[in-house]
Amino acid sequence: MKTEFGLIEQLRRRSATSKIGDDCAVVPKDAKTDLVLTTDLLIEDIDFRREWMIPEFLGHKALTVSLSDVAAMGAQPVWAMLSIGIPENIWKTDFVEKFYEGWFALAKKFNIELIGGDISKTPDKIVIDSIVAGEVKKGEAILRSGAKVGDLIFVTGEVGAAAAGLKLLESGERFDKQNYKTALLRQLQPNPQTEIGRLIGRKKLATAMIDLSDGLSSDLWHLCRESSIGAKIYADKIPFYEKSNSLTESFNEKMRFALDGGEDFELLFTVNPKKKKRLENELKNYRISHIGETTANVEMMEVIAGEDSSFFEPRGFRHF
Amino acid sequence: MKTEFGLIEQLRRRSATSKIGDDCAVVPKDAKTDLVLTTDLLIEDIDFRREWMIPEFLGHKALTVSLSDVAAMGAQPVWAMLSIGIPENIWKTDFVEKFYEGWFALAKKFNIELIGGDISKTPDKIVIDSIVAGEVKKGEAILRSGAKVGDLIFVTGEVGAAAAGLKLLESGERFDKQNYKTALLRQLQPNPQTEIGRLIGRKKLATAMIDLSDGLSSDLWHLCRESSIGAKIYADKIPFYEKSNSLTESFNEKMRFALDGGEDFELLFTVNPKKKKRLENELKNYRISHIGETTANVEMMEVIAGEDSSFFEPRGFRHF
Repeated sequence: MKTEFGLIEQLRRRSATSKIGDDCAVVPKDAKTDLVLTTDLLIEDIDFRREWMIPEFLGHKALTVSLSDVAAMGAQPVWAMLSIGIPENIWKTDFVEKFYEGWFALAKKFNIELIGGDISKTPDKIVIDSIVAGEVKKGEAILRSGAKVGDLIFVTGEVGAAAAGLKLLESGERFDKQNYKTALLRQLQPNPQTEIGRLIGRKKLATAMIDLSDGLSSDLWHLCRESSIGAKIYADKIPFYEKSNSLTESFNEKMRFALDGGEDFELLFTVNPKKKKRLENELKNYRISHIGETTANVEMMEVIAGEDSSFFEPRGFRHF
Repeated sequence: MKTEFGLIEQLRRRSATSKIGDDCAVVPKDAKTDLVLTTDLLIEDIDFRREWMIPEFLGHKALTVSLSDVAAMGAQPVWAMLSIGIPENIWKTDFVEKFYEGWFALAKKFNIELIGGDISKTPDKIVIDSIVAGEVKKGEAILRSGAKVGDLIFVTGEVGAAAAGLKLLESGERFDKQNYKTALLRQLQPNPQTEIGRLIGRKKLATAMIDLSDGLSSDLWHLCRESSIGAKIYADKIPFYEKSNSLTESFNEKMRFALDGGEDFELLFTVNPKKKKRLENELKNYRISHIGETTANVEMMEVIAGEDSSFFEPRGFRHF
């Protein structure tokens, strides 16, 4: 059966250069700068549900997913385009205006300029395409492919909150209730790691980086694959979403939230062990967790929990 | 009632610069070059019907709509991104592969590199977002806003073929029949005016330019509005699709095909009268028609047919 990653692989082979397959494409801008570019589709009833969202959250999230890709390259976001297709009955409400409110509020925070887009009617579902460009010093974009055996694996923030929020939404909770508000907001209005991504890029702290959009297990696997390495991680070092325990009593479910949940939009990156001290110093204002190491066991991922060790598969989100 | 053009106007006011509202956004690249960027959504059952298309045509057309915008800036297309959302049952066929075949065949012709994109599942309709970037000498992108009163109005090729093709499709004709094949192909597999657009740009022949995507009446109106001018055109100078007469006996319908039909992807441009000779010389290998002049009658458009003269409205395609 063909998968979306198989198709991407085909397209990559077909493309003259190797720009396809990372968080962003890298193209030369001027003598000192590269441009990084990403595009992300958000489809109603696949990537979001209208009844769970307020339009402002959707605008915010549409920009976050792309900013997160730019952050994963260690780049500074600069401009954006935003295309939206919308059914006629929604067009007649104030949905679009509020959607743009949410988008602009986040764009303003990072000084991102809206330079274009497209508006179209759709038969019944909302579709969004978010395009963001960033800038990075020539040759310094952080790819998925740069990790070496023995590098340390780090993750920003905490993982599993968006998946916990999704579970709550699926069970009928809504964001305006006070319970578990953090988890709901992490799913509905996630924030990109733009500042720390940029800092990691500017200070050349990482050998490889990817954002946690599909889920830690899948995104770590992408990084392993592109870098031709393996990975082992330690269960007790994973920065689980702090309220996980109040949401599930099952350790397995907590692990599933963290490993396979996706949409945390945290950054996963690898670091040369010699740079560990400098890393901790440069990033002292941010929460980062050292969760494991890369190994020579190509494309194999292992999780260590106390005395136990087991291999795990990429089981995060995929469309096909 | 709000229109899509009203929303674009709002977004433009909100944006720090005036990049929004032309065929492409213009952003600085390096000391000598500007980048022009466009994004175009194509939504099934709004912009195309799956049963009228073969996948190769859809891939071709997705690229054409964006190349046409780049041509209208007088720019050279350079790279592209392509996002596609597709229902699961279509994913399982060879649709996507054939869609990319059509895309790549046209991309190869103009040496355009695919640098990225996104693949998503949709509930039931195909959605495409096509993104193309072009390059142009700094400050020389041809905007819609540069026309002056007294400029000559030109159009490339012939107009009304795509609308005639649409009429045939709606009446049950299909592209594999031999009748009216040109009109069907002009609707299903239109070509961008990339070469002539680039030539007009390089030789600085036009004061303003726009591509005919919504329809001559609407696109001329956009140009008039942005340039704060009016226009008069001569019915007998309009380069009607050559087979129009075999498709309709009504002069009014022929005019509707030409003025309001859209999707011809020809270029409409204005020229300083002093440059007319040079224009005709530089573009001698291309079909261009001098169809009228710009006037001081701001945003008013007039068509002259023999002794008669009447004002006409923008009645081309709009989503809302």
